[in-house]
Amino acid sequence: MSLKTIGVLGIGEMGTAVAKLLHDNGVRVVTTLDGRSAKTKTNAATAGVEDLGSLGEVVKVSDLVLSMLSSKVAQQVAHLVGQTAKDLGVHSMYGEFNAIAPTTVQTIEKDIGDMMDVVDGGIVGGPNNLLAATFYLSGPRAYEVAALSDFGFNTRVLGDVVGQASGMKLCYAGMTKGLSTMALDLLLAAGSLGVDGPVLEQYQRSMSGVLEFINRFVPGNPKRAVRRSEEMPEVATMIDSLGFDGSIHRAAYERMKWLGHLELDTDGFPDAASVAHHIINQKKRK
Amino acid sequence: MSLKTIGVLGIGEMGTAVAKLLHDNGVRVVTTLDGRSAKTKTNAATAGVEDLGSLGEVVKVSDLVLSMLSSKVAQQVAHLVGQTAKDLGVHSMYGEFNAIAPTTVQTIEKDIGDMMDVVDGGIVGGPNNLLAATFYLSGPRAYEVAALSDFGFNTRVLGDVVGQASGMKLCYAGMTKGLSTMALDLLLAAGSLGVDGPVLEQYQRSMSGVLEFINRFVPGNPKRAVRRSEEMPEVATMIDSLGFDGSIHRAAYERMKWLGHLELDTDGFPDAASVAHHIINQKKRK
Repeated sequence: MSLKTIGVLGIGEMGTAVAKLLHDNGVRVVTTLDGRSAKTKTNAATAGVEDLGSLGEVVKVSDLVLSMLSSKVAQQVAHLVGQTAKDLGVHSMYGEFNAIAPTTVQTIEKDIGDMMDVVDGGIVGGPNNLLAATFYLSGPRAYEVAALSDFGFNTRVLGDVVGQASGMKLCYAGMTKGLSTMALDLLLAAGSLGVDGPVLEQYQRSMSGVLEFINRFVPGNPKRAVRRSEEMPEVATMIDSLGFDGSIHRAAYERMKWLGHLELDTDGFPDAASVAHHIINQKKRK
Repeated sequence: MSLKTIGVLGIGEMGTAVAKLLHDNGVRVVTTLDGRSAKTKTNAATAGVEDLGSLGEVVKVSDLVLSMLSSKVAQQVAHLVGQTAKDLGVHSMYGEFNAIAPTTVQTIEKDIGDMMDVVDGGIVGGPNNLLAATFYLSGPRAYEVAALSDFGFNTRVLGDVVGQASGMKLCYAGMTKGLSTMALDLLLAAGSLGVDGPVLEQYQRSMSGVLEFINRFVPGNPKRAVRRSEEMPEVATMIDSLGFDGSIHRAAYERMKWLGHLELDTDGFPDAASVAHHIINQKKRK
């Protein structure tokens, strides 16, 4: 089956970027925007997405339905799509592209796999530079979705097991988000004690690559903390379900939520230490 | 006051290395080995340390008493030294060189500060390469202890506040140990899912410096997990006491203890992923 019509559920930042690249490459992109905001409707139209008005229509015409929503609603939406496909007697592919634990994708496969062939997807990279992102894929029909590469996407099939692509994504996200969250806590301590200078020098001397990453990643964290935190419980769930213990990532999730509640915008700050100082100063003022 | 005689409490790996360097540079190094093992007594003798037989004798003759024991007994030993100094009417310097939270060093200062001037010390570096280590110091008399540089030590005074040097040390140790523990959990997941190849490639592409550090640090972790874990609750205590939240490091502590209980020796393993695979295989066998 070729990918002539693709349904995109979730016209957020990533959904819009993906839809636009598909549309620009000749794919018919459809969705349903029932009850969505005017802004979302404008975004969809700009990206060339047709609003078919109902999930039934989207499922009926799509060769592939991509779910790119929030981790929180992934199971619920998949169930709804599966039911819709059953009611319509449609059998096509469901790309589960949310950042969720492998076991959650496997649960979805069990739930809807009789109607929709689930392809597990994990996107590493952001919507602002989609051509540099990698779309990891796994599952028995992953190779069919890998044909997205015809439309400019970097795709990579990891295997035929649903869960591998989402696991790959979470092992990456867990590192970027866990490390940056842990580092910020340490820099909050170092800054409070007035020793962040020597601490940073010591990081530079003994682990310069780590410091470089922290300085690159931490400034963008506060503004995106709520969204970026969403996948952290999924990372913990993944590690737990494999017989280990994801406690560090559960703790990092709580810290990321805390960061989000500060409602700070530190985009453009030069490094992690300046973000830490900003937070310390905010705290003093209160 | 010059440092002619130095008492070293704790003839472990680091204590022995420090004592030997001092002795080799003409310092009289004393300790008390009452009730210690024959091995420790041999180590002390080899390093040129005089066993004076009692804490009283050590406190009486030392210009500086260095505490380099385990974090767990730091407060107790300091209290004993303070009491001994009081009984003897001796007033000298106490170098608190254990890896403990700044607030704990400050508690020690309050406890014994009327008899012993506390100098806060934090050692970054290992006993095997002592000349490359840095001895961070803080407190009103830190500059006097900085004279250790006369004997080949790299010393650096951070300020006159007791707590700064230990804080510096913990902000460094928290990063090395926290990051390596977190990374191992993620690689245990990646290896279990059969996607550690792509995960490592993605780390290499997006955060090569982090991967390099992990590969350097993780192989030595299992064997040293019990000892390395000791300072992790101190890191958490430090962050908490400054008004933030050290939960990530508390979680990392539990994971490090778990690693220690596996009783593995992965020294010489080429990278973090091979350590993860070793653990996964051990688990399968059980």
